[in-house]
Amino acid sequence: MADKVVILTGGVSREEIALDPLTRKIYLELTEPSLEDNRADVDRLAAALEKLLGPVVVPLAAMRRIPAVLRDADWRVTVTVGAGAPGVWNLVDVEPGDTVKRHYGLAVDIGSTTVVVYLVNMHDGRIMGTAADYNGQVGLGEDILTRIYLAGTPGGLEQLQRAILVTLNGLIRRLTDEHGLAGGNISAVAIGANSTMVHLFLGVDPSRICMAPYIPVVNNPGLIPAGQLGLEINPLAPVYCLPSVGSYVGGDVVAGVLASGLHQQPELSLFVDIGTNGEIILGNRDWLVGCAGAAGPALEGGVAECGMRAEPGAIDSVSIDPESGKVRYTTIGGAPPMGICGSGLVDCLAELLLAGIIDRAGRFKDGRREFVVVPASESATGKDIVVTQVDINNLMRTKGAVNAALELLLESVGCNLSDISRFYAAGAFGQYLHLESAITIGLYPDLPRDKMVRLGNASGEGARLVLLSNRKRAEAEAIARNITYFELNANQVFMNKFVGSKFLPHTNLDYYPTVK
Amino acid sequence: MADKVVILTGGVSREEIALDPLTRKIYLELTEPSLEDNRADVDRLAAALEKLLGPVVVPLAAMRRIPAVLRDADWRVTVTVGAGAPGVWNLVDVEPGDTVKRHYGLAVDIGSTTVVVYLVNMHDGRIMGTAADYNGQVGLGEDILTRIYLAGTPGGLEQLQRAILVTLNGLIRRLTDEHGLAGGNISAVAIGANSTMVHLFLGVDPSRICMAPYIPVVNNPGLIPAGQLGLEINPLAPVYCLPSVGSYVGGDVVAGVLASGLHQQPELSLFVDIGTNGEIILGNRDWLVGCAGAAGPALEGGVAECGMRAEPGAIDSVSIDPESGKVRYTTIGGAPPMGICGSGLVDCLAELLLAGIIDRAGRFKDGRREFVVVPASESATGKDIVVTQVDINNLMRTKGAVNAALELLLESVGCNLSDISRFYAAGAFGQYLHLESAITIGLYPDLPRDKMVRLGNASGEGARLVLLSNRKRAEAEAIARNITYFELNANQVFMNKFVGSKFLPHTNLDYYPTVK
Ligand code: FES
Ligand SMILES: [Mg+2]
Ligand SMILES: [Mg+2]
Repeated sequence: MADKVVILTGGVSREEIALDPLTRKIYLELTEPSLEDNRADVDRLAAALEKLLGPVVVPLAAMRRIPAVLRDADWRVTVTVGAGAPGVWNLVDVEPGDTVKRHYGLAVDIGSTTVVVYLVNMHDGRIMGTAADYNGQVGLGEDILTRIYLAGTPGGLEQLQRAILVTLNGLIRRLTDEHGLAGGNISAVAIGANSTMVHLFLGVDPSRICMAPYIPVVNNPGLIPAGQLGLEINPLAPVYCLPSVGSYVGGDVVAGVLASGLHQQPELSLFVDIGTNGEIILGNRDWLVGCAGAAGPALEGGVAECGMRAEPGAIDSVSIDPESGKVRYTTIGGAPPMGICGSGLVDCLAELLLAGIIDRAGRFKDGRREFVVVPASESATGKDIVVTQVDINNLMRTKGAVNAALELLLESVGCNLSDISRFYAAGAFGQYLHLESAITIGLYPDLPRDKMVRLGNASGEGARLVLLSNRKRAEAEAIARNITYFELNANQVFMNKFVGSKFLPHTNLDYYPTVK
Repeated sequence: MADKVVILTGGVSREEIALDPLTRKIYLELTEPSLEDNRADVDRLAAALEKLLGPVVVPLAAMRRIPAVLRDADWRVTVTVGAGAPGVWNLVDVEPGDTVKRHYGLAVDIGSTTVVVYLVNMHDGRIMGTAADYNGQVGLGEDILTRIYLAGTPGGLEQLQRAILVTLNGLIRRLTDEHGLAGGNISAVAIGANSTMVHLFLGVDPSRICMAPYIPVVNNPGLIPAGQLGLEINPLAPVYCLPSVGSYVGGDVVAGVLASGLHQQPELSLFVDIGTNGEIILGNRDWLVGCAGAAGPALEGGVAECGMRAEPGAIDSVSIDPESGKVRYTTIGGAPPMGICGSGLVDCLAELLLAGIIDRAGRFKDGRREFVVVPASESATGKDIVVTQVDINNLMRTKGAVNAALELLLESVGCNLSDISRFYAAGAFGQYLHLESAITIGLYPDLPRDKMVRLGNASGEGARLVLLSNRKRAEAEAIARNITYFELNANQVFMNKFVGSKFLPHTNLDYYPTVK
């Protein structure tokens, strides 16, 4: 059995991890019972496992199946055991014959907009397939606050839980069908998701996440059998949600930090995930601080006047000729333009500034209320595709929140931007944003470009790491435990900085030497 | 809190055990969350518990309830935790305020005929109430073999499982109603039952119990949450079935040995439970051997021609005047006679022998086929109540099996009857049989009467001990592990002895000095 595997962390770094996955498969040849050796079936199996593993708990559901499997397989079986309570394994499956190499798990990124499921071969650590879909909850509430509100209405929580479950089960079926597997062949799941997504997936009340003092029901839900959650896989498969730090720094961020590896490096690193909240983590192997910028959903599809998700027809890059004012753009899939996605919006703002159409305060110099990116005659909607003053103000608030949060974190630990050795950009926006535009508007800090690393889907990658390695899982728990969390929602220092950072790229241009 | 309690073991001995029950209740005053201390509700609770107890697992079902309880109770709550995987506690309940003294569990004896439930105050160790009923499975199959057969037919196992569940839930409701409790107030259950009863209760296939080489599915099922079994109590309450030694020496016997305390005594003791199987355990604190005599159900209601259960109207004692042949009898409750129960049958056989009506081979000397105990004119049924030659033969087989098994055990360890310091008679028959009659027919060994101890419902008492003490639970597991089990079903030495013991009281009268 291969027990080392090269992990691709979003194309950033390759790290060899020892394979020690959330579930293990063990092939056993048991002694057939006789009058002389008349131990019970379950006790016989448990004894053989305990010799190898220490305490093993056999759940009732498994007991019912064991006698037939043992006899049909002539006492040669492969047992799947899963991590349980500390120091204890739980029996998850018993299959006839030697199936040690057929060992499958799922790494999952539940974003509030997009859900990605990776089918992982836990025997060799490789990703066998990927499937993605919109989070079914989007239809019930575009942004997170709407969903938290809905969860508080009668039946709302159940509705939201069912929606994400339908999405997940659909993706799982797609992947298992593609690879000729049954749902029951999946024996472990690791999930990177923010606090609210985890609450809704578990069916626990998220309402206090958005009310001071912002207390989640649970940050570290531990290992839950899949059957209790409605996932259509082996019902005894352990499901692990990466732990959250707090209401606004979730398991997706912890997964991202884990994937970046910054928690093991001696140099100071900065990790930024620009999504709804703009989570920021600063630290090294000795300490970690973090906060969420309450960035607001400015970059999410549907918030801006002509905003949309990164689907075909979305304008994803924009440039404006400073002389002629002529706009050039590209769309996803080259389709006729229907709206603007997040990265397109950031480009717009940067280009409007560079072309002198807006001032550093984000105001249109000539007093107009909107800028036409694509005229009605060219658009697929038959209407002008525009960026409005309101859109610009929203985006400035987002970047202001991220700026202020970063400044606050740096100050709190007595560091400067120049102390940062590496900047990790995570999340969907991190993957597609144009770096120069993001720096131009001050959303990202103005650091030497060779210090900047795009992590890709760091949440999914972190989930894959904990799926494949119990040591990585312990590291994730340590990260969550060790991050000193600054709650910004009611923080006056943050509010002052926030107000002070509402210029493009920043009130203090010294922070942005290359933009000046 | 009282932490020592005097245990009554069927009126035999009083033992002080330290209270250390299957679940514990702990009153906590938690710090209210704030911006400065914004731990999640579940993590906050778990941290407070782990400081006291080490690792605690919080099940999903509990997570959902915790936030509301904590706030309604102003952060002062009583937490119930239950024994889980080795070294780990599971959260079972969270209640507002200090309810440490309201701590309830059930000790249960599931017999194939009768089920007894004891409501136990786990705070002081006392029995608050007892409720008994026939096992609902009796209606589906009077004897165990019929039930095992039924379990193998489509839907049969589910039917049998439902039947015992209905019985148990009925008894539980009766007890909780009586004491003004809700089912949810019950947080732990310990059960003494034979292997087949445990299989049927758990819904696992019992079919191989009665087929060579007599392999149960499970001897030690561990701790199972009540909700998985359909018990109408706190669904997270741990349910513990005392471990079996094998197919024919079950958790009821292990419970009985535990209650007798013979496993801790330096002297040699004999433990006999005359039921369907006639289980025998011989040993002391250093070693234990055991077997089941495959006694057959001769003593159970409904097997003999006029047999019935120990209900009102059952003839429970009989004497026959050797001169006149006149019969005197008593019935349970003094009701008009309807049939004969087990103890009445044993009396009959002894008296028939002593009156010279049958010979030592159990045959009617005058060649008749039956003996009229009560004539039709006096009986409640309007028919003669009789003991037939077939009834006598059945009972002789039972006593022969017990004799042979005991002889085999004694020989296997190189001991004699005279080495036995104490004889424990367990089970319902042990409670009601007339000692002299049982010795006269050779069902019990002919030992000095002061060495003989009736244990009463030893299975229920053993269940109470493990409910109240995790140390006693560990002892029960050690008893089950340490009993060297002799499988008699296919044992030629046993068969020879069985054939040789079919005289009353025994082929070798030296074994029965006081009967001679
Ligand atoms: S936000 Fe524009 S391509 Fe993703
Ligand atoms: Mg994300
Ligand atoms: Mg019994």
